[in-house]
Amino acid sequence: MIRMASGWFYLSCLLLGSLGSMCILFTIYWMQYWRGGFAWNGSIYMFNWHPVLMVAGMVVFYGGASLVYRLPQSWVGPKLPWKLLHAALHLMAFILTVVGLVAVFTFHNHGKIANLYSLHSWLGITAVFLFACQWCLGFAVFLLPWASMWLRSLLKPIHVFFGAAILSLSIASVISGINEKLFFSLKNTTRPYNSLPSEAVFANSTGMLVAAFGLLVLYILLASSWKRPEPGILTDRQPLLHDGE
Amino acid sequence: MIRMASGWFYLSCLLLGSLGSMCILFTIYWMQYWRGGFAWNGSIYMFNWHPVLMVAGMVVFYGGASLVYRLPQSWVGPKLPWKLLHAALHLMAFILTVVGLVAVFTFHNHGKIANLYSLHSWLGITAVFLFACQWCLGFAVFLLPWASMWLRSLLKPIHVFFGAAILSLSIASVISGINEKLFFSLKNTTRPYNSLPSEAVFANSTGMLVAAFGLLVLYILLASSWKRPEPGILTDRQPLLHDGE
Repeated sequence: MIRMASGWFYLSCLLLGSLGSMCILFTIYWMQYWRGGFAWNGSIYMFNWHPVLMVAGMVVFYGGASLVYRLPQSWVGPKLPWKLLHAALHLMAFILTVVGLVAVFTFHNHGKIANLYSLHSWLGITAVFLFACQWCLGFAVFLLPWASMWLRSLLKPIHVFFGAAILSLSIASVISGINEKLFFSLKNTTRPYNSLPSEAVFANSTGMLVAAFGLLVLYILLASSWKRPEPGILTDRQPLLHDGE
Repeated sequence: MIRMASGWFYLSCLLLGSLGSMCILFTIYWMQYWRGGFAWNGSIYMFNWHPVLMVAGMVVFYGGASLVYRLPQSWVGPKLPWKLLHAALHLMAFILTVVGLVAVFTFHNHGKIANLYSLHSWLGITAVFLFACQWCLGFAVFLLPWASMWLRSLLKPIHVFFGAAILSLSIASVISGINEKLFFSLKNTTRPYNSLPSEAVFANSTGMLVAAFGLLVLYILLASSWKRPEPGILTDRQPLLHDGE
């Protein structure tokens, strides 16, 4: 049973890796081919880093980093190396996210455009703020050695839930962001958004891929047979391999 | 333990009811006060039904209907009445959703506006399509008597996952829809969206409430201590009340 479950798990990981790469590559291609490429000078080409870095940071790296404890290798032996990997990957995701925010704020400030007025930005900044809180709390409680097992087992389901919740908010932010960007870019053109030019079809598809990737992460995260078996609340570190799911 | 858990459960339900009512009432108020109210004649006032009915159907009623089996009353005795309630509430949610779609399609067709071009619409129609599939499959497998317990226990986690996934997609659709509507409505006005007029603050807040409601539903749905205790896969109908948790 465990062999079959992990076969499906690796197949899902393969799908996840392909979907995640496609999300990032499609966003890069959209910005490069239709929106004039990238620069770091306060212009609209600096803005173009924003979608790429947010999709990479808040969705793809974040999603991958969330799934560390679903690797069957992490189920046996000491948990600390896996915790460090989980924290380090999330830190990378957070750094990409912050650079993505710098890109849009710098572009806005250069062009005297208001910051943080749209629902997209309200929801997005909430997701980033929650991500920062989640990372710091996770570091303090699960990595630093002071917290008791009681506190850790109390906070763990909350940590897992907020992890999934932040990803859901990120997906909603990315979807609304792509939608908004297309309305901005494709107005006053010979082929506006509502005539579905190839850019619109491509970027809409990218948004659908982001949604599919996010749902696949949530599926792998929540599917109970892929969770690290709990050897009881107070013996969390005891190395044990449960057989048969 | 069960008493404390159900105390928190009812407190969450109270919060859920308040948040859900606020989502619907805020959307009605937005459409009534700033967008000229409602009509059923193909005009922009017919469109105004769309946000109200989608928030009510795909988010609030859908969310409430999802949680039927989390009521501790549903844990004992025959499951059939609760299944009927679950299916009936979801059917109501679906009907509201379909009327909400009729409102926007009729408005578009009257005004010669293209249908289904934005990412908002692609994601939204996907969510509605999955909802229809989910309802029909749920009806066929879990309500009609032909399916074996083996098939039901195989499909149940998939049914629960897709239930949560459809809600996540609905939230992303609603957020992108509110965002898009504000860009449409607040352009060429003396106080555009980026100057955050009171309508923008109010509608952005409505969007944030919808996100909060959705996350609370997912929390109640996924919190393990609020799930109907499983008396084993093959004795699904056996009335049993587990103590502790």
